[in-house]
Amino acid sequence: MKVLVIGLGLIGGSMAIDIKASNKGAVILGYDADEEHLDTAISLGLIDEKATLEDAASVDVIIVAIPVNVSLKVIPRVLDIVKDDTLVFDVGSTKANICKVVGEHPNRRNFLAAHPIAGTEYSGPQAAIKNLYKGKTNIVCEVEKTAFKVQERAMEIFNDLGMRIRYMDPLAHDRHIAYVSHLSHISSFMLGKTVIDKEKNERDIFDMAGSGFESTVRLAKSSPAMWSPIFEQNKQNVIETLEEYIVNLQNFKELMESNDFEAIYKEMEDTNRIKEILKGITIKSS
Amino acid sequence: MKVLVIGLGLIGGSMAIDIKASNKGAVILGYDADEEHLDTAISLGLIDEKATLEDAASVDVIIVAIPVNVSLKVIPRVLDIVKDDTLVFDVGSTKANICKVVGEHPNRRNFLAAHPIAGTEYSGPQAAIKNLYKGKTNIVCEVEKTAFKVQERAMEIFNDLGMRIRYMDPLAHDRHIAYVSHLSHISSFMLGKTVIDKEKNERDIFDMAGSGFESTVRLAKSSPAMWSPIFEQNKQNVIETLEEYIVNLQNFKELMESNDFEAIYKEMEDTNRIKEILKGITIKSS
Repeated sequence: MKVLVIGLGLIGGSMAIDIKASNKGAVILGYDADEEHLDTAISLGLIDEKATLEDAASVDVIIVAIPVNVSLKVIPRVLDIVKDDTLVFDVGSTKANICKVVGEHPNRRNFLAAHPIAGTEYSGPQAAIKNLYKGKTNIVCEVEKTAFKVQERAMEIFNDLGMRIRYMDPLAHDRHIAYVSHLSHISSFMLGKTVIDKEKNERDIFDMAGSGFESTVRLAKSSPAMWSPIFEQNKQNVIETLEEYIVNLQNFKELMESNDFEAIYKEMEDTNRIKEILKGITIKSS
Repeated sequence: MKVLVIGLGLIGGSMAIDIKASNKGAVILGYDADEEHLDTAISLGLIDEKATLEDAASVDVIIVAIPVNVSLKVIPRVLDIVKDDTLVFDVGSTKANICKVVGEHPNRRNFLAAHPIAGTEYSGPQAAIKNLYKGKTNIVCEVEKTAFKVQERAMEIFNDLGMRIRYMDPLAHDRHIAYVSHLSHISSFMLGKTVIDKEKNERDIFDMAGSGFESTVRLAKSSPAMWSPIFEQNKQNVIETLEEYIVNLQNFKELMESNDFEAIYKEMEDTNRIKEILKGITIKSS
C-alpha cells in the first residue's frame, strides 16, 4: 500500500506513524508546502519519501491534513489525477464546504470526508505522536457518496488507528462542532488575551496562575494558521455560538451586579451536569 | 503539635494529610459543619479526632478552609478564644475582606491570611490527596500584621507542605486573582452552560467533544458552595474582568462578521505568547 500524506503537521504526521506501524508493507510518501516540515518529517522517520502533489496519480491512499481553506483547492486537484480505486480523505474540522466543493467532481466517489476528533494544542511534524487516534471518535460525512471499495479501505485504516466511527450530515457536523470545539478555542484565546492585556507584568501571572487557569487557556496555544480558516469556513455557526456565549456571560455579570448570588449558585449547580458528560469523554479517550 | 482543621474538603483535608505525614507527633482535630464530611474524614484517616469550634481554645494551629463568606464569621469567633501563641490561617481565594474583618481584632496578630494556589475541580473530604501543595505558590497577605512567632510557625508548615511563598497586598491579590482564577471559572461555567443549553441531546456532546473541550470546561465541575461566595467577595474585580472578556469576545465576533480573518489570525498569534507563560506554570507545578 502506497500512502501519500499531504500536510505533515500533528494530524498528518501522527497518522503516518500509526499507519506505518500497523501496515508493515506500507510506503509513506509525504508532501508539505513548507520544505522545512518535509525535512523534519523525513528526519523523524514519519515518512519514507518526499513527494509532490503529482504523486497523487500513483498512490493507493491520500490523506489531506492541511488548513481547511487550502484543502478546498488541493482536494479537487488531487481528485483530478487519482487512480480509479484510490482513497482520498481529509481530516478537517469543517465539513460542509469541502463536501460542497467536491460534490460535482467526476471523481467524487474517491473522496471520503472525515473529521477525527483528536489533537493537542501543539502543531508541526515534531508534535506528531503515536496512538493519537486510539479510542477517539472519527466523524464521517456523506459516506453514501463514496464508492464502496473506497469506503472499505478507509474503514480498514480507521480501524487500524483504533477509531470509533460516527456518520453525520456535514451541516449537522459543522453546527455541533462549533459548540464543542470551535467555541472552546475562541473562549480560550480571548481568556488568554484578556489576562495578557491586563497583566503586563508576566511575572504576576506566572506566580498566581494555577492548574485551573492552565487548563482553560491551554487551547490558546493552538495554531492560528489552522484555526483562522476553520472560523472562516464555519463562520455562521461560530458567530451563533459566540452570541449565545456572550449572552450567558452578560447574564452572569448582571446577576452579580444585582447581588443575586443565589441565582449564580443555581447557574453553577445546573452546569455541574457537565461532570457526567465529561465522564463519558474521559472514558472514551482513555 | 495540636492542629484543628476547620472545613474538611479538598483543601483542608489535603493539608491534614501532609501535615500529619511531616509531623509524626501532630494530632489533627477536625471540624466541619457537615457531619457527614466529618465522618468521612475520620474513616479516611484525614483527622485523628472530631472537634468543635470551642476546641480552638486549646490547639496550636487552626486552619480555616471553608467558603470565604463563612470564614468572615468563623475566624473572628476563633480568634476570640485562641491561646496566646496559636496560629490561625485561612486559605481562601479572596483576601481583602478577611483582612478588613480581622483588622481591629485584639488577636489580629494570631492570624495569617494565606491563599495556596492549589486545588482540583473536585470537592469534599474524599477529594483530598497528598502532596497537593508541593511546588505550588502560597500567597501571604499583610504578613507584617502577624506576630513573629506565629509567622514562623506558619512558615514551617508551608515549608513542610512544599510551598513557595509570595507576599502581596490583599487588594492587589484580589485584583490579580480575578484575572488568573476567578474569570477562568466563569468562562468555563458559561461555556458548559452554552453547550448544554444548545445540545439537549447529550449523546451528541459525548461523541463530538474531544480533549480540548474537556480542558476548557473542566472548571465547570467546581463546587457552587465554594465559588458563589468567592464571586460575591470579589465582586468589583470580577465584574471588571468579565467586562473586558466580553469586549474581547465581541471584538472577535465583529472581526468575523466583517470577514477580517487576517486580524483574527493576528489576535491568535499574539495570544500564542501564553505558551511561554504556561511553560513557567508547568515547570513550577511539576
